[in-house]
Amino acid sequence: MYRLIKQEGRARRGEFETPHGTVQTPVFMNVGTQGAIKGALSARDLKEIGCQVELSNTYHLHVRPGDGLIKEMGGLHRFMTWDGPILTDSGGFQIFSLASLRKIREEGVRFNSHVAGRHLFLGPEASMRIQANLGSDIAMAFDECIKIPSPRDYVIRSCDRTVRWLERCKKALAEYNGEDGAVNPGQMLFGINQGAVFHDIRIEHMKKIADLDLPGYAIGGLAVGETHQEMYDTIEAVEEHMPADKPRYLMGVGTPGNIIESVARGVDFFDCVMPARNGRHGHLFTWDGIINIKNEKYQRDELPIDPACSCPVCRRYSRAYLRHLFKAEEMLAMRLAVGHNLFFYNSLMQRIRDSLEAGGFDSFRHTYSEILDKRI
Amino acid sequence: MYRLIKQEGRARRGEFETPHGTVQTPVFMNVGTQGAIKGALSARDLKEIGCQVELSNTYHLHVRPGDGLIKEMGGLHRFMTWDGPILTDSGGFQIFSLASLRKIREEGVRFNSHVAGRHLFLGPEASMRIQANLGSDIAMAFDECIKIPSPRDYVIRSCDRTVRWLERCKKALAEYNGEDGAVNPGQMLFGINQGAVFHDIRIEHMKKIADLDLPGYAIGGLAVGETHQEMYDTIEAVEEHMPADKPRYLMGVGTPGNIIESVARGVDFFDCVMPARNGRHGHLFTWDGIINIKNEKYQRDELPIDPACSCPVCRRYSRAYLRHLFKAEEMLAMRLAVGHNLFFYNSLMQRIRDSLEAGGFDSFRHTYSEILDKRI
Repeated sequence: MYRLIKQEGRARRGEFETPHGTVQTPVFMNVGTQGAIKGALSARDLKEIGCQVELSNTYHLHVRPGDGLIKEMGGLHRFMTWDGPILTDSGGFQIFSLASLRKIREEGVRFNSHVAGRHLFLGPEASMRIQANLGSDIAMAFDECIKIPSPRDYVIRSCDRTVRWLERCKKALAEYNGEDGAVNPGQMLFGINQGAVFHDIRIEHMKKIADLDLPGYAIGGLAVGETHQEMYDTIEAVEEHMPADKPRYLMGVGTPGNIIESVARGVDFFDCVMPARNGRHGHLFTWDGIINIKNEKYQRDELPIDPACSCPVCRRYSRAYLRHLFKAEEMLAMRLAVGHNLFFYNSLMQRIRDSLEAGGFDSFRHTYSEILDKRI
Repeated sequence: MYRLIKQEGRARRGEFETPHGTVQTPVFMNVGTQGAIKGALSARDLKEIGCQVELSNTYHLHVRPGDGLIKEMGGLHRFMTWDGPILTDSGGFQIFSLASLRKIREEGVRFNSHVAGRHLFLGPEASMRIQANLGSDIAMAFDECIKIPSPRDYVIRSCDRTVRWLERCKKALAEYNGEDGAVNPGQMLFGINQGAVFHDIRIEHMKKIADLDLPGYAIGGLAVGETHQEMYDTIEAVEEHMPADKPRYLMGVGTPGNIIESVARGVDFFDCVMPARNGRHGHLFTWDGIINIKNEKYQRDELPIDPACSCPVCRRYSRAYLRHLFKAEEMLAMRLAVGHNLFFYNSLMQRIRDSLEAGGFDSFRHTYSEILDKRI
């Protein structure tokens, strides 16, 4: 389902078919944790800002409003009125970042929910059941996101378990999507590579999960505290062992510079809460670097956020008005800022794809890899 | 500039020309206090929900970002990117509702701002200067909004002063809008009738301000604690003495029922924060009454908020999704709820106008005057 269109070094221009449309890669997935984009963006806005794939969180939607309810409402696409591709994570990451009192067993993980302190259980079968109920196009494997640093022997044991969990995920998802009334029978499963920053463990693990011949593979457990260099080195080590005919997804990454550098190392899919979160704080991406729209100097500035940007916000509003909205704590400030930042990320990916097609990615990388992450 | 198109009883179907377009009356003005609609609605959304006139607040914009800044940015229309008619209030109401330590003199009012406790002064000339800087299409007279109840002799003294203030407003605004670089030279001034619920004082005051031959007149100082019946009685008493060839604006009113009943008593312009405020709390207007979308019973409800509503929210989203957004505290909940409620108010006015044109307002009033305000 992945088709490689062009390659420049390790960087890949491709496309990936899903039940809700073909995704042009490299792609950034726009995060709608609870079935909605933060900052009051609507599904229609997502189209306008060039979003190709929406990403929602299994853990959050399972807790509220419940995946059973969403299935009854016709699945997540219909519930949130987004007809493009959706990827759901497995809930694993949230268990390890949000839940307290978790207990990991072979069976799965028992934990307390961050909402109302309910006791919950998530394992490979439960995660697949929830994701089948949501009916996303890409379901992510249930894995343990290992914290960095962790002892080597723990990482080995955890990775072995993640392989066994992945086998159970594959079996369970196939079963659930074969049932009558399955929300999205064409739903696909991506495996997730773990191994902290131990290259040999990562490679060993990658080889094992590649044997399961899944439609795509993610590199998980990065961007959790290691340095950027450690992250890049780990990607380089493992990428060679990822199937070339499958898309590669680097989970939770990152800054524009991180994305450019990871594309250069063969990654196709990205997601990150950063553009929305930065936007809500008035930190706005431009092709010259990151500006803080709340700065005094924008008080009487009639220019758009970025004169080089063609997003709906830059086509209409001045920096002065945006600054006023932030100072006055108007909700519209959030919407416009998040809308601009997500448009920026989506058009960053468009420009990466264009440069790959034109054979100019290396030059693009050279021009933008550092500058875009700088605060100006 | 006001043209009466048709009349049914006291109710009037008309139109009113402004420098930024002709307003079909009766009309509801959508409140954007700080130059933005609460709930993250954009200027483009306003067009979609049928808004004819946007209302902004002189006091708030004077305090932040400052009317001088807005003038430099080309005026409020350009600053907030709304090209339709704008009405600004005089700041008087906020002085009496928000400011502490105010001191009323013939000259004007000294008070502490609710933002950062700054000392400020507002009088007829200052209010007109600010509104001229904002460049609204309709400027409101600077008046004292008298609290109800107030002693009769105080109300008389205050009303006499409001007449003197109005003469100063008229003179000042003409002067400011005759200056080179005036933002909106066609800006008009509406006088405001006061007098608490003393009919004789109201009438006397109305006669005096009518003599100034302004383009429009408002009834102020109502909906501040009196009963609905007292409000209606006061409108009836004063309406006869309002010029028939000028629009009448009932400030800060009200529920759908209040609006229908006031149209029946000859009122043409309305504004109220209620639809936006109710929306933010999940209280949504429908043609059957007011629903609370957070109610358990909407958890799995696939219907739109109001199956009889054709707003962008009802055309797209289910009650179940909206309820989820409220429960999950997603900002999108606010935007969709406020958008629906404002659309409801604007289409209420459209239906009032349609019924007046068809000679069926009395029947419309009979059907909807009570039901729309009920919680169901």
